[in-house]
Amino acid sequence: MGDDTGPVREALDTLDLVDHHCHGIVTFGLDRQGFESLLTEGAAWPGSGISLFDTPAGVAVRRHCAPVLGLPRHAPPEEYLARRAELGGPKASRRLLAAAGVSAFCVDTGYAAERLTGPAELAELAARPGVRPAAYEVVRLESVAEAVAARGVEPDEYAAAVEAAVRQAVARPGVVAVKSVAAYRTGFALDPARPAEEEVTRAAAAWLAGPGQGDGRRLADPVLVRHLLWTAVEVGLPLQLHTGFGDSDLHLHRADPALLTDWLRLTAGTVPVMLLHCWPHQRQAAYLAAVFEQVYLDVGLALHHVGPARAGAVLAEALEITPFRKLLYSSDAFGLAEFHHLGAVAFRRGLAGLLQQRVDAGELSLPDALRIARWTGRDNALRVYRLPAPDDPGDRTGAR
Amino acid sequence: MGDDTGPVREALDTLDLVDHHCHGIVTFGLDRQGFESLLTEGAAWPGSGISLFDTPAGVAVRRHCAPVLGLPRHAPPEEYLARRAELGGPKASRRLLAAAGVSAFCVDTGYAAERLTGPAELAELAARPGVRPAAYEVVRLESVAEAVAARGVEPDEYAAAVEAAVRQAVARPGVVAVKSVAAYRTGFALDPARPAEEEVTRAAAAWLAGPGQGDGRRLADPVLVRHLLWTAVEVGLPLQLHTGFGDSDLHLHRADPALLTDWLRLTAGTVPVMLLHCWPHQRQAAYLAAVFEQVYLDVGLALHHVGPARAGAVLAEALEITPFRKLLYSSDAFGLAEFHHLGAVAFRRGLAGLLQQRVDAGELSLPDALRIARWTGRDNALRVYRLPAPDDPGDRTGAR
Amino acid sequence: MGDDTGPVREALDTLDLVDHHCHGIVTFGLDRQGFESLLTEGAAWPGSGISLFDTPAGVAVRRHCAPVLGLPRHAPPEEYLARRAELGGPKASRRLLAAAGVSAFCVDTGYAAERLTGPAELAELAARPGVRPAAYEVVRLESVAEAVAARGVEPDEYAAAVEAAVRQAVARPGVVAVKSVAAYRTGFALDPARPAEEEVTRAAAAWLAGPGQGDGRRLADPVLVRHLLWTAVEVGLPLQLHTGFGDSDLHLHRADPALLTDWLRLTAGTVPVMLLHCWPHQRQAAYLAAVFEQVYLDVGLALHHVGPARAGAVLAEALEITPFRKLLYSSDAFGLAEFHHLGAVAFRRGLAGLLQQRVDAGELSLPDALRIARWTGRDNALRVYRLPAPDDPGDRTGAR
Repeated sequence: MGDDTGPVREALDTLDLVDHHCHGIVTFGLDRQGFESLLTEGAAWPGSGISLFDTPAGVAVRRHCAPVLGLPRHAPPEEYLARRAELGGPKASRRLLAAAGVSAFCVDTGYAAERLTGPAELAELAARPGVRPAAYEVVRLESVAEAVAARGVEPDEYAAAVEAAVRQAVARPGVVAVKSVAAYRTGFALDPARPAEEEVTRAAAAWLAGPGQGDGRRLADPVLVRHLLWTAVEVGLPLQLHTGFGDSDLHLHRADPALLTDWLRLTAGTVPVMLLHCWPHQRQAAYLAAVFEQVYLDVGLALHHVGPARAGAVLAEALEITPFRKLLYSSDAFGLAEFHHLGAVAFRRGLAGLLQQRVDAGELSLPDALRIARWTGRDNALRVYRLPAPDDPGDRTGAR
Repeated sequence: MGDDTGPVREALDTLDLVDHHCHGIVTFGLDRQGFESLLTEGAAWPGSGISLFDTPAGVAVRRHCAPVLGLPRHAPPEEYLARRAELGGPKASRRLLAAAGVSAFCVDTGYAAERLTGPAELAELAARPGVRPAAYEVVRLESVAEAVAARGVEPDEYAAAVEAAVRQAVARPGVVAVKSVAAYRTGFALDPARPAEEEVTRAAAAWLAGPGQGDGRRLADPVLVRHLLWTAVEVGLPLQLHTGFGDSDLHLHRADPALLTDWLRLTAGTVPVMLLHCWPHQRQAAYLAAVFEQVYLDVGLALHHVGPARAGAVLAEALEITPFRKLLYSSDAFGLAEFHHLGAVAFRRGLAGLLQQRVDAGELSLPDALRIARWTGRDNALRVYRLPAPDDPGDRTGAR
Repeated sequence: MGDDTGPVREALDTLDLVDHHCHGIVTFGLDRQGFESLLTEGAAWPGSGISLFDTPAGVAVRRHCAPVLGLPRHAPPEEYLARRAELGGPKASRRLLAAAGVSAFCVDTGYAAERLTGPAELAELAARPGVRPAAYEVVRLESVAEAVAARGVEPDEYAAAVEAAVRQAVARPGVVAVKSVAAYRTGFALDPARPAEEEVTRAAAAWLAGPGQGDGRRLADPVLVRHLLWTAVEVGLPLQLHTGFGDSDLHLHRADPALLTDWLRLTAGTVPVMLLHCWPHQRQAAYLAAVFEQVYLDVGLALHHVGPARAGAVLAEALEITPFRKLLYSSDAFGLAEFHHLGAVAFRRGLAGLLQQRVDAGELSLPDALRIARWTGRDNALRVYRLPAPDDPGDRTGAR
């Protein structure tokens, strides 16, 4: 997991990654509580006596991000934050984003967009000599539906209005996918069938008449969430699905992607389904990716939260039966530029460690290992999202 | 996981295994698509651009089966298939089956029997100098019930007819167990109680009046599936249960063997229950094997799909709390002779690696490690199924 | 996992642990069947031909406890039991408890109290030169409620009587926590809301009128179990919850702590919730500890059942995302002094192995590793239960 070298590690260290699912960052200054609140998927716990630096993610920030800002490895939190403040948010972020070595970002713009950099700004901050990363956008379906509701819509026009709004959103330049957070809103134990029009109208009527208004109306009705999944099928872009690990607004057992099995059967042959994060259900996700042609997965979010020390173990489970064209890299970084860097480091080292070990044991050929590295780190994403190959001077690993 | 040696590895490499659950193979020639469709638990995906050789199982075939057919390790798929075609299906299969080093096969004959070798033919193909493997049969309960329905039966005679048919099937020479695929048909969240006669009659009436006829009638009624589990208890042979991983016709979360807990309580003291495959629920299966006298498990199917590179990791989880007399070897190989070989290689290397590591660390004595190897690879199966000890010149590991 | 050394291992080997959840032991002599029945979470299986020594726990007893009793590593069961009998239960137990190196025990006194040593006696048996361990008590809520029922109570006085009895029980000197075995009685898929008074009265009426009387009345009503969880919130002490692995009187899938999510949301800001054992749901528990301020976890029970050979692997999963102030040490030892020793050995070696490896790989600084060792082995428990720092001459690891 550590400082080992070898040809696979070298190849992964120099491969420009495609991050197929991430968020923007904050570039304004962060005090300790502000920084800690972004270090965790929970809330910061001021007054508890528990620092969120005392976590695997906090340790990994001190280990891998401190040197990028010019500090020694394992610098204490106070020094780290002081140095970050000294550089200023934008400059520190530039360094960390450049260190991540990403050539294309697919950015979910549907959450906390007002606080975060947009795709273009994120890519610009990540520029480095010879590499100007591409920026793509992922449209969050629930946010589109909530915006439709906030603008005002009649229940019997809801379905058509939402589909039209989604089609309009994905027609914007640079949009490459849609995303659903059904895992948060209802979990995956949904009726898999496409809801009938009357059903949607009835559910929309209840929702629109219910509490909340304007931006405060949160879509969590099972019929309407299902309707969004089926709208994604209509629209035809790859569908990203949050699964597994996330913040405290989640039921982890209802975010098991295996619960989607019947829906995946019904929608086979339509859109690629990208299972995001997955931890601790990565084996369940791998099963789905192994038996359904349209299913892909990543272990984003987990990568920076478990850190390079455990990323290899999580990746090893995710790859136990997953076809090698089905695993993608994502950071799912949110808020902190640190997580863009950490996700990339954890992926590179974790994957390199497990592949190199198999090469050393004679279980895998070196060319196969290098191919798996390029596929999962970059080419699988280019293929699924039909992205142009990035201008990639950092790639020393040969042809795709 | 690799080329390490040591006394445990030597003992396992020379131990003739008992494969307590497998299927026959196809001996006719296979083109690339035909071969790939057997490499996966899903379907082949022609036109997708995704080769099923680019999977852990595909990599393992190229690594471990290519040398058996006289090719270098990691030979490309094209060369592998060309060499296989050159030798011809029967000759290639003979080599691979012999390399598996199995002395007894327990063969599930209840699925796709018309395309696959029967037990005797499989054993004959696996013969090698000094070893003529034994062949036993496992009767699939759902297939028996479907055959009863296909022949025609009155609802109120269904229960008795099925029990009679099962008794007749298991009376055939060489039958050592029955098997249920309840995991596929209903999952394990069943009412655990023995169904009343009227209940079975009612359910049979509905099923027999329903769609499908002849061989096309698929038993998936929860009462009738339960009735089969209780019929197994009546008949008294060990009951094999598919659990966990399988093809796309499954709900992985409903195949968690922990869901069987109440039924295992009710049937304690009756028949041995053999939990097959289990992955990714191997720890749940281990719990059941640790607390219920009648429960046993294996990690077949997973072994060749994860390959030798991860078999040790899966076995280590399966063995965390499992009594050493409760783990068995199975390949669950289906269709490809390759999987008979790979399952055996993955089991031998995975188990040897973890046992040798414990011996080296002083956590386990060498004699204990050798005993655990013999038990799990052979003797536990001989004991549960009451099989005669195979004539076993390949065994250099001493007395049982 | 084995005989490695290093500064982290040295620190953990000399750290006096706080065992925040355990049971008393039997000090009377044990024949083979009596000993084996305590070696397992199931029942002993006399006549089955399966010895419970042939388990990971049995192997670990022979490896780690035999030397404490003056035998060579890996001594056969017969020799081990003969030596134990020769020393006598109390003397053998003293040696094993002293070897555990524990400075404070929090003892669940609510189960099989008549057969087991109480907290004071346990601590006295564990005394060693320079260390006289502290003894604390954990009150089991279901036992209190069952005692109220056994004494006789009117349904409409049940709620108040139970709360009064719990308050009286926790007012005893040395009581530091309450515990619920809801996992066994109903599982965690409970209505999370605080039950209304009438609801409790109705449920109490049904329970009190039902079968069982005196000590034989087992509380398993979902409303009354929920009422106990909310009584714990009222009383205000840390609440220990059995989760995951346990004996055959359990449904493992209903003991997944993720099922408690809604209840944890409702009770945020009230009492610390200590998730005990967790295996195989340690990642689910880690998620809860990462996102809810009040949640803590341990992997007790699993430690001695998986043994030092796998304790590191289980701890590594438990620590993947858990804040380092949220993991505690417990043995959950019950009946056998051996398990007090084994739990401690497995924890020390498992944790030392994984921390040292991260230090060696440059992923963790040595001071951080030592801090994590002290926190998880001792200080987190002192903090949550507000225990006085033990007089701790065995601690060479510096200040907290």
